[in-house]
Amino acid sequence: MPVLKLLLAYDGTRFRGWARQPGERTVEGVLARALGRMLRAEPRLTVAGRTDAGVHARGQVVSFEGEEDPLRLQRGVNGMLAPEVVVLRASRAPAGFDARRGARAREYVYRVWTAEWPDPFLARYVWHLPGLGELGRMRRAARDLVGEHDFRSFSRPPPRGDTVRRLERVAIRRQGDVVSFRMRGNAFLRQMVRSVVGTMVEVAEGKIAPEAMPEVLAARSRAAAGRVAPADGLTLERVLYGG
Amino acid sequence: MPVLKLLLAYDGTRFRGWARQPGERTVEGVLARALGRMLRAEPRLTVAGRTDAGVHARGQVVSFEGEEDPLRLQRGVNGMLAPEVVVLRASRAPAGFDARRGARAREYVYRVWTAEWPDPFLARYVWHLPGLGELGRMRRAARDLVGEHDFRSFSRPPPRGDTVRRLERVAIRRQGDVVSFRMRGNAFLRQMVRSVVGTMVEVAEGKIAPEAMPEVLAARSRAAAGRVAPADGLTLERVLYGG
Repeated sequence: MPVLKLLLAYDGTRFRGWARQPGERTVEGVLARALGRMLRAEPRLTVAGRTDAGVHARGQVVSFEGEEDPLRLQRGVNGMLAPEVVVLRASRAPAGFDARRGARAREYVYRVWTAEWPDPFLARYVWHLPGLGELGRMRRAARDLVGEHDFRSFSRPPPRGDTVRRLERVAIRRQGDVVSFRMRGNAFLRQMVRSVVGTMVEVAEGKIAPEAMPEVLAARSRAAAGRVAPADGLTLERVLYGG
Repeated sequence: MPVLKLLLAYDGTRFRGWARQPGERTVEGVLARALGRMLRAEPRLTVAGRTDAGVHARGQVVSFEGEEDPLRLQRGVNGMLAPEVVVLRASRAPAGFDARRGARAREYVYRVWTAEWPDPFLARYVWHLPGLGELGRMRRAARDLVGEHDFRSFSRPPPRGDTVRRLERVAIRRQGDVVSFRMRGNAFLRQMVRSVVGTMVEVAEGKIAPEAMPEVLAARSRAAAGRVAPADGLTLERVLYGG
C-alpha cells in the first residue's frame, strides 16, 4: 500500500498534545478526522514526535497509508484546520516509509523570554523568566549531557524500557530578549527536553553546579534533575531522515 | 495635577479597538477599569493612536492625571491584564503632557505573510497574501504618497475636517516570507495605513498603475484608492515625542 507523508506546523496551545485520547481535543484527533472526511475512512497516523499538551510544532512529520493526490489532501486539510494546524507539504513516500521509525533525529527548540515583562505576541510560545543569564554556566553543564547516556533522570513519568538516548547537540543562544535551547537527538524520552531546560535554568540560578551533570545522569532518578520547564516554550522544529 | 504616562503593548485580536464603547470589550475599557481598581476612580485616558478593532500595538502611549507611584501601577495593571495588554514602562510626565497632542509622529508597521500557507504562530498578526511581490512597483507608488497631502482618498469613513497629513516615510521590505510596510507620519486618518497598504497591493497586482498616486490623491474620494487591508496585519510600533 502506498504511503503519504505530511509536514505539519501547529500551535499546540489549545490541544491536549498529539496523541488521541477519548474526550480530549488533540492534534492527532482533529487531523485524523479532517483526513477521514476526504478519504474513505480515518487513516492510522504514525508520527515522528508525540508532542505533549501545549507543545508546538513547526516541522512535525506524519505518515499513513493512502494513495490520494497529496495536493488535494493538503488543500482540504488546510481548508478545515489552518491556521491552527497547517500542512506545509504533502507528498508520496517510498513504500514502507514510517515517520517514526524512519526518523534519524529530532530537533527541538525551547525558548525563554528574559525581559522584565511578557510580550503579548510571544507569550504563548515562551517561558517567561525575567533576567535569565549565565549562558556560560548552562553551556558548561549542557556539554556533559551531549552523547549517548541513560537519560532516566530527565524523564517523567518514569519510563519503562530502554532509557538510553543519544543527545547530539545542545546550542544555547541569546537573540535579543530570547534565550533559546536547540537540542538535537536520535530520540527523546517523555518530557526530556523540558527536564533538561529546567535543569539548565537551575544551573543558571546557582541551585545546581554546572559540573554536576555526570552525577545527575548516574542517579537515574527524576529527583536528581531540576524542574520541568512549562510546555509553552517548546517547539518541535524538525525531523531528520536519511543517511 | 501631575501626569502619568504609560508605554503599552497589546494583542488587539480580542478587542473591539482602543476606544471605549458601551457593551464592547476595548483596550481603553479594560485598562481604565484596571487602573480604576488601584486609584480612587477610573482615570480619563488620553491616547496617542486610537487603534481600530483587531489592530495591535507595541509602543502605544497613554497619559492621565495622577500622582501614584508609577512602578506600583505598572505591577498592578500587568498583574491583571498581562500578557494580552502589557505596561512596558510607567513614568511621571511633565505637567501638561498629553499623549495625543504632544506626539510629533506615529510609526505603524503593516505585515503581509507571502508564503503559500499560513503560519500558525503569525496568523493573528499578518495579512496572508501568497506570492505578493513586485516590491519595486509598490515602492514607486509609495514615493508619491510621501509628503504633505490631502489623504481623503485613503480614509474611511469619510472624515470631517482637515484631511491633510504629512506622511514622512514609507519603507517596504521583505524579510523571509514577510513583506512589511513601515509608515511614519505626523498623524493618520482613520484606516489610512490600511488603505495605503490595500492600494499598494493593488499596484503589485497590476490593478492600479504605480504612477497613479497623484491622481488618486487628487480625487479626494475613497473610491479612487484600493481596498482596505484587514486589521490583523497592523501594529502601532511607536510614537515619537519632542523636538
